[in-house]
Amino acid sequence: MNTFGRIFRLTTFGESHGRGIGGIIDGCPPGIVVDPELVQAELARRKPGQSKITTQRMEPDQVEFLSGIFEGKTLGTPIAFVVWNKDQHSTDYDDLKNVYRPSHADFTYEKKYGLRDHRGGGRSSARETIARVAAGAIARTMLQSAGVTIHAYVSQVGDVLLEKSYRELDLSLTESNIVRCPDPETAERMIAKIVEAGQNHDTLGGVITGVITGTPAGWGEPVFNKLHAELGFAMLGINAVKGFEYGSGFEGTRLPGSIHNDLFIPGGQGVRTSTNHSGGIQGGISNGEDIYFRVAFKPIATLLREQATVDSGNNPVTILPKGRHDPCVLPRAVPIVEAMAALVMVDHMLMQKINQH
Amino acid sequence: MNTFGRIFRLTTFGESHGRGIGGIIDGCPPGIVVDPELVQAELARRKPGQSKITTQRMEPDQVEFLSGIFEGKTLGTPIAFVVWNKDQHSTDYDDLKNVYRPSHADFTYEKKYGLRDHRGGGRSSARETIARVAAGAIARTMLQSAGVTIHAYVSQVGDVLLEKSYRELDLSLTESNIVRCPDPETAERMIAKIVEAGQNHDTLGGVITGVITGTPAGWGEPVFNKLHAELGFAMLGINAVKGFEYGSGFEGTRLPGSIHNDLFIPGGQGVRTSTNHSGGIQGGISNGEDIYFRVAFKPIATLLREQATVDSGNNPVTILPKGRHDPCVLPRAVPIVEAMAALVMVDHMLMQKINQH
Amino acid sequence: MNTFGRIFRLTTFGESHGRGIGGIIDGCPPGIVVDPELVQAELARRKPGQSKITTQRMEPDQVEFLSGIFEGKTLGTPIAFVVWNKDQHSTDYDDLKNVYRPSHADFTYEKKYGLRDHRGGGRSSARETIARVAAGAIARTMLQSAGVTIHAYVSQVGDVLLEKSYRELDLSLTESNIVRCPDPETAERMIAKIVEAGQNHDTLGGVITGVITGTPAGWGEPVFNKLHAELGFAMLGINAVKGFEYGSGFEGTRLPGSIHNDLFIPGGQGVRTSTNHSGGIQGGISNGEDIYFRVAFKPIATLLREQATVDSGNNPVTILPKGRHDPCVLPRAVPIVEAMAALVMVDHMLMQKINQH
Amino acid sequence: MNTFGRIFRLTTFGESHGRGIGGIIDGCPPGIVVDPELVQAELARRKPGQSKITTQRMEPDQVEFLSGIFEGKTLGTPIAFVVWNKDQHSTDYDDLKNVYRPSHADFTYEKKYGLRDHRGGGRSSARETIARVAAGAIARTMLQSAGVTIHAYVSQVGDVLLEKSYRELDLSLTESNIVRCPDPETAERMIAKIVEAGQNHDTLGGVITGVITGTPAGWGEPVFNKLHAELGFAMLGINAVKGFEYGSGFEGTRLPGSIHNDLFIPGGQGVRTSTNHSGGIQGGISNGEDIYFRVAFKPIATLLREQATVDSGNNPVTILPKGRHDPCVLPRAVPIVEAMAALVMVDHMLMQKINQH
Repeated sequence: MNTFGRIFRLTTFGESHGRGIGGIIDGCPPGIVVDPELVQAELARRKPGQSKITTQRMEPDQVEFLSGIFEGKTLGTPIAFVVWNKDQHSTDYDDLKNVYRPSHADFTYEKKYGLRDHRGGGRSSARETIARVAAGAIARTMLQSAGVTIHAYVSQVGDVLLEKSYRELDLSLTESNIVRCPDPETAERMIAKIVEAGQNHDTLGGVITGVITGTPAGWGEPVFNKLHAELGFAMLGINAVKGFEYGSGFEGTRLPGSIHNDLFIPGGQGVRTSTNHSGGIQGGISNGEDIYFRVAFKPIATLLREQATVDSGNNPVTILPKGRHDPCVLPRAVPIVEAMAALVMVDHMLMQKINQH
Repeated sequence: MNTFGRIFRLTTFGESHGRGIGGIIDGCPPGIVVDPELVQAELARRKPGQSKITTQRMEPDQVEFLSGIFEGKTLGTPIAFVVWNKDQHSTDYDDLKNVYRPSHADFTYEKKYGLRDHRGGGRSSARETIARVAAGAIARTMLQSAGVTIHAYVSQVGDVLLEKSYRELDLSLTESNIVRCPDPETAERMIAKIVEAGQNHDTLGGVITGVITGTPAGWGEPVFNKLHAELGFAMLGINAVKGFEYGSGFEGTRLPGSIHNDLFIPGGQGVRTSTNHSGGIQGGISNGEDIYFRVAFKPIATLLREQATVDSGNNPVTILPKGRHDPCVLPRAVPIVEAMAALVMVDHMLMQKINQH
Repeated sequence: MNTFGRIFRLTTFGESHGRGIGGIIDGCPPGIVVDPELVQAELARRKPGQSKITTQRMEPDQVEFLSGIFEGKTLGTPIAFVVWNKDQHSTDYDDLKNVYRPSHADFTYEKKYGLRDHRGGGRSSARETIARVAAGAIARTMLQSAGVTIHAYVSQVGDVLLEKSYRELDLSLTESNIVRCPDPETAERMIAKIVEAGQNHDTLGGVITGVITGTPAGWGEPVFNKLHAELGFAMLGINAVKGFEYGSGFEGTRLPGSIHNDLFIPGGQGVRTSTNHSGGIQGGISNGEDIYFRVAFKPIATLLREQATVDSGNNPVTILPKGRHDPCVLPRAVPIVEAMAALVMVDHMLMQKINQH
Repeated sequence: MNTFGRIFRLTTFGESHGRGIGGIIDGCPPGIVVDPELVQAELARRKPGQSKITTQRMEPDQVEFLSGIFEGKTLGTPIAFVVWNKDQHSTDYDDLKNVYRPSHADFTYEKKYGLRDHRGGGRSSARETIARVAAGAIARTMLQSAGVTIHAYVSQVGDVLLEKSYRELDLSLTESNIVRCPDPETAERMIAKIVEAGQNHDTLGGVITGVITGTPAGWGEPVFNKLHAELGFAMLGINAVKGFEYGSGFEGTRLPGSIHNDLFIPGGQGVRTSTNHSGGIQGGISNGEDIYFRVAFKPIATLLREQATVDSGNNPVTILPKGRHDPCVLPRAVPIVEAMAALVMVDHMLMQKINQH
C-alpha cells in the first residue's frame, strides 16, 4: 500500500529517522533523459532550511540513483533512489516514546500496527514526500516533452487570501518570493503572517492552487479513475491535506446549470469551450482546456507549546515538543503538489497510448 | 480501469442504453448473508421516478444475481449481478449522434476512444452507479456486523444551506422527506427550490454530507492510500462531483494550529479526543472518532433548454435535449455516496485483518 | 482473485449449476471489430457433446454480450458477457452434498471457504473456462491483426505419444479429427484409446502442445513476468494441468550448453537464431522465433466407478458418480489452451505499446 | 512489472554492474522479528565463490536494511534493502557492447527497450535474485511460525539423475555437500560431472525438486491464481528455468484416472489422502498433504569458448567471453527456488486471513 500509479508506479520507503527515504519507479519508459540536477533542484524547493519562514533544520537531501539509469538515460528497468537521512536529532523524541502528540499519527499508527517508530513521526513524517518529489521530477520531464506544464502556488495562508484567479496572475513570479505566491503584495502579507505565527509558537494552514496546461483532450478514465478523482486522491494523500476541489468546486454548487454549463465553441485548432467551470475535465477525461484545482492544508500539528494529551496507558500528560519545525507547511508543499500532479498526469499519458492505433 | 477496491473489488459494466448495468464483486468473504430485498431497497432510493423532484423516467431497476451466492450466503467466489435496462428511449438521442452536449462527456469520450455510444450518454451515464449501489449494499451489511454505520444526507441545494452540523441533527429523519435532508424546515426550502428550477428548465447543484460512526481505530493506510484519500477518490469518482473535504476541510485552513489541534483525553474505553477537527482520521488512519465529510455536486448538465454547442465537424449548432431528466441530482445521489463510502470502508476493514495476529 | 491480465483484464464469474458463466473484459482498446459468430465458433470447439469421445451433455453455450460493443465495435468500455446455464442436472449431485469426491476440489473448497456449492463442482467446474474461451476469441482477433497466430493440438493421450515436432506437422489438420491431433494416424490411435477408457469407466490424461508464430521481438517482461512465466501461469491455471515447459523444456536440461545455445545468425529481415531451444523467448522476452510449449493434463478425476472416500464428518464412505462426463479432457482443452495463450500475448502486445515512442 | 505478490509484495531493482541490487517489501505485517544474520545466511547459500563448482567471483553480498525495521521488528511499513555491488569487472564486457551473446537477453532487451546496459547482462543478470533471496528469508520466518517448511535440492545435473523420491531421502543432508543433493553418492557423481564440464569450458543444466510441508488445507485460489499456478509462475520467473511440474507432473499424464486419483481416508486429525499424486493441491487449493514440484534449468548460456553470433548491425562475428562464470547454476539456485516458494506461500497465508472470521 505504498505504491502510487498503474503504469508509471512509484513505491516509496523510509522513516524520518531511519537510514533514508527513497523509492522505486517501475514502469518508466526507456530512453528518457534524466538530469540529476533537475531532480535536485526540485528537492531544494521542498527541503527544510530554505528560508526564514521554514524550519531551520539543515538537511542536504541529496538524491542518489541506484539503478535504472545508464549513460544518462532510463533503461526501462526500475529506477531506485535514496536520500540518506542526516542531521536527525532522534533524542529530541525520547520523551515522546509513550505519548501521543495531538493531531499527529502516533496514536493511530500504534492502533494499526501495534508498534511504531516514535522518532520524528517515523513513516508518518512528511519527509516521505522527498520520494514523491524526486519521482515527480522525472514525470515532469516526460510531460514537458508532451507540452504539458504543471504549476502550483500558495493562494491562501491562514486568513490571508489571494483573491485573483490563476488567469489574472503572472505564474512565473511564484518562485520570486519565499512563500511561493505569484502576487508580490499578497506574498508580503502571507510572509508577515507566518513570521508572526512562528513568534507565537503557533502554526498556520492554507490553500495551494494547481494549474495544468497543455493537456491534450482524451486523458483520463471514465468511471472510478476519473482524471480529477486521481488528482484528488493524489492530493489527499499528501500530509495535512483536508480537501480538494477542481474547476468550479464547492463554489460552483451554488450556480444554476444554465450558468455553470461550459458551451462548446468552434476553435481554430478544434473544439473549445467558452467558459471553463469544468476545470478542463468532463466525464473524468481531459477536454483540452486548462485543468485547475485547489488543495486545503490544515495548520501543522506540531506546536512548540505545552499541550495536554494522554500516554499509551491512557493517562493525562502534557508535552512540550522540542526541535525545529515549520510554522506553515504551504511554501514547501508547492513542489509536492506539483510532483503528485505530475505522477497522475504521466500515468494517464502512458495509459492513453494503449488506446491509440 | 473499471474496478474499485483492493480486497473487496467491484468491477462494473454497462452503457445507459445497452442490455443492462451490472458488475462483479470479487474478494467478498464467504458466509455473508445477502438479503436481495435489502439490495433492492438501496436501489429504490437511487432509482428515477421516486418523487416529484426527480426525473419521471420509470425504471424498475430490479437486480438479478448470477453467481457467488448459494442458499442465501456468499460463497467466496465472484458475485455477478445485472440490472436489465428497460424503458430506454434511445431515439430521443438520435439528434445528438454527432453533437457534443455542453458539459457532458460526449466530446471527451470521442477524443479518448475515437468512437462512442451516443445514446443516453453511454458509459458516462450516472446509470452506471446502479452497480455501485448494489455492491455497496453488501459492503454495508458487513460493516454493520462490525458496528460501523454510514449515513449521508443533503446539506445544500443551490444556495439553500443546512447550517447545522451533523451532531445537531436527528439523522433518522433523512428518509422522511423526498430531498433527503434531516432538517424538515430546510428540506421544505430545498424542495421548493428544486421545483422552481424544474419549472425554469434549469438545474441545481449542492452538497452531500457523509457521516461514518463506529469505525475502530486503526483502519486506513499511511501514505498514498490514506483513509480520507480513498474516501475522496471514491466520491470524486461519482458523476458530477467537483470537490471533497473531510473534518475541518477548507474552513479549517483558516484556524491556527493552537485551536485546530484535537487534544487527546483519557476515555472510559480508551483514548478519545476533545474536539474532532481531524474528522476521525489522523495520518490517514481512523482514530475511533466519527468520520465526516462533504461532497460538492455541480448542477446537472442536461437542461431542457436550447443551448449553443458544436458538432463533430467543429461547426456551431444549437441543441434542445428531449427526454426526462432530474433538475437536481442530490436526493438520488445520497445512496450513491453511502455506497461508495461502504466500499472504501469494507476494503480497509478486510485489509486490517492482515495486520492482526 | 478471479482476474487475469494487467491491461487486457478478464474477470470471470459463475458456478457450474448457477445462473450462468461469464465475465467482464476491461481494458480492451476501442474500435476492435467483434464478430459474435467467431466467438461462438470457439465456444463450439470447447462445448460438451461435440463428438463421441466427449461427454454427451448437450449445452448450447450461447454467448450473450451485455455491454462494451456498439455497432459491432468495442467501445473501450467493459465488455460483459454471459453464457446461461441450461441442461444442468443438479439433482445428480444430491448424494455428494456432504461427500468429498477423490481428487476433486470439494474438500479444499470447504476448507478454504467453510461452505460450498456442491452441484457440479460449483466454481471449481471446468465450465468456468467458457469465459476464458470467449475472451480469448477477442484477444485472438487483435493478435491476428498484428500477424500473431496461436495454434494448439493434442500431442499425447495416455501412453499414445505423437513423436513428431510441430515443425514436421501440418497444423491445419488439427481440426480434421475429433481428438484434435494433426497427425491422422496418431489421432486414430488416440481416439481408440479414449473410446476404450470410456468403456472401462476410466479416464485418461495427456499433453497439449502450443505454438505461437509471428510474435515480434520485444514482447515480455524481464524479471517476474517473463513471457514464458506468464504463459506457464496461464496454463497451470487451467483445470487438471500439472506441468508446463517451453522450448527445450525438461529434456533440454540434459544437454550441455555447447549444444543447447542458439547461435545468432544474420537474417534477411534482421537477426535470427540457427536453432530454437530457447522456444522463441530469451530473458523472458520474445526474440521473433516461434514460441512453443507443452502442457500436461492429468486424467479427469470423475470416474463412473465406485470409489472409497470420506464424508464431511471424516467417516469412510463409497461413491458412485452419476451423470455424463468426459473420459478425456484433452480434445476440448485445445481451445482453452489457445485462449489462455491469446490472453497472455495480447496483454504483452498492449504493454509493449508503452515502451514505444 | 518488477513486483511479485499481492499482499506481501516484493519490488526489486538493480543492474548487475550498477550501484547495487535490492528491493522493497511492502505489505509485510508488523511485529515480525527479522534476524539480519538469517537473511545473510540465505544470501551466503546463493553467493558466488562458495565452492569449487561455482564461479570464483568473490562478492560479499552484504545486505543493508534501509527502512521498515525498528528495534529488530517489522513496523508494517515498507522494508527497503540493498546489496551493494562490488568486485564488478565492467571492462570485461567492453567487447560485448554491440554484440549479442547467444541464448542471453542482450538481443531481446535491445528489441524491447531500444537501449541496454551491456555490462554483466544488466538487469537480466541472475544477480537480481539476491533481492528475492533476501525477501524470501523474511517470508520463511513467517511461514515457520505457522509450521510451514520449504526445502529444495538438486535432483538432476545433466544426465546424472537422483532416482529416489523426496520421501526416500534425508533432506537434512542437502547442505552437507556443495552441489546440494541430499543423496551423498549421487552428489559425488554430480560434482564430478560439473568439474568435468568446467574443464571443458562447457555448462550443464538440471532439475531442482522442491518440497513444502505443513501447509494447512485451504491456502490458494480457485481459478487463475491456483496455488500451483503461482508456484509455477514464481519458478518460471527464475533465470534459466524452462519447465515446472507438481505432483505427478508430466509422468502422471500416462496414468489412468483409476490409478491417479488420490482416495480420501479418515485421518486422526482430519481428512487425509491415501496417495498424493495431487502434490498437496486440489482445485488450486492446498489439501494439507505435502506439496512437491520439479523445476527444469537449462545449461547456462555463458560458455568460455569461441561462439558465432551477430552484432547490432546484423553482421556475423565471433565472441570469446571473459570473466568468471558458473559451469552449472543448480547448486546456487536451490536457495532461489526456496525463496520464491516462500514468497508465494506467505502471500497465500496472508490472503487466507481475509476469509477467516
